Amino acid sequence: MAQQEVTNGGSEKKTGGGNDIMEVIEVKFTALKPQLVVEAPKANEAILFYKAAFGAEELGRTLHPKRKADQELPLILSAQLSLAGSTILVSDLADPSETPAKTEGTGLAFYLETDDVASAINKAVGAGAVVVSEIAEGEGAGCGLSRVGKVKDPYGVVWAIGSPAAKAAVVEA
Amino acid sequence: MAQQEVTNGGSEKKTGGGNDIMEVIEVKFTALKPQLVVEAPKANEAILFYKAAFGAEELGRTLHPKRKADQELPLILSAQLSLAGSTILVSDLADPSETPAKTEGTGLAFYLETDDVASAINKAVGAGAVVVSEIAEGEGAGCGLSRVGKVKDPYGVVWAIGSPAAKAAVVEA
Repeated sequence: MAQQEVTNGGSEKKTGGGNDIMEVIEVKFTALKPQLVVEAPKANEAILFYKAAFGAEELGRTLHPKRKADQELPLILSAQLSLAGSTILVSDLADPSETPAKTEGTGLAFYLETDDVASAINKAVGAGAVVVSEIAEGEGAGCGLSRVGKVKDPYGVVWAIGSPAAKAAVVEA
Repeated sequence: MAQQEVTNGGSEKKTGGGNDIMEVIEVKFTALKPQLVVEAPKANEAILFYKAAFGAEELGRTLHPKRKADQELPLILSAQLSLAGSTILVSDLADPSETPAKTEGTGLAFYLETDDVASAINKAVGAGAVVVSEIAEGEGAGCGLSRVGKVKDPYGVVWAIGSPAAKAAVVEA
């Protein structure tokens, strides 16, 4: 009976249960960008390596808004590298509690861009992902995205789902 | 003295030292594809998840050429999924000794396609990467690539560098 209600078009919007939403939500993603998180402050060194090893080109970088007293240079929140027609992100691990590296023992994650962050996260959770970082807004949200939340999928991969960054936050290389 | 010989321009082509080659090689990469390796036989389940969670579309899949007696279905060597304009690969971990998961504790790696696999690997090694899998040829080389070698970069990321797969090896979804 419950199943019948769920598949009834007229009642879907009213019930709003997790699985109901999954079938209804249409989320459009505009970009997928693999992100490499390295131990701070090695991001700059890593960027030089990817240029030398693979001919990557730097499109721009976003610096961390706060600099600690013992840091000579500001940390890199996110540098955008172009490689073989794709964009990859390289970031300094500024806060060990906010990185895929901590939860997964890896510095690789995915960034998925969309204008509808909340719906995208709801849909992923409905399909079996787990929220590892609630949606945060503003300059400090990370990696040049103005609004971002993170989920971990059943295979251990962390997906940061965010809205595109405000242009002003990006420093051209 | 040895250092001086290496940096002498006239002797570069004869000596062929690693750093000399790095500066000379021009390698063109045609595609970058993140690859997710999951414990076999969960690749099919993972593909269904990425379709449900993110709306990924399957472009095709390459099956493992050999099926073990206890496997109901052949393992997936590589499925190609389209997501937000990018292609990601999902593979069953058929041989635990041949996966980035073993060396890095992660199922995420990168595939870089090029027609000049050997030069690309030489250049990456010259820049500081380490070979983790020598170039192998033929059907069993893995993931729909006809010729592939693997290097690990100084930041722990495994890069499989291979030539594009022969079309015949890909099964359309």
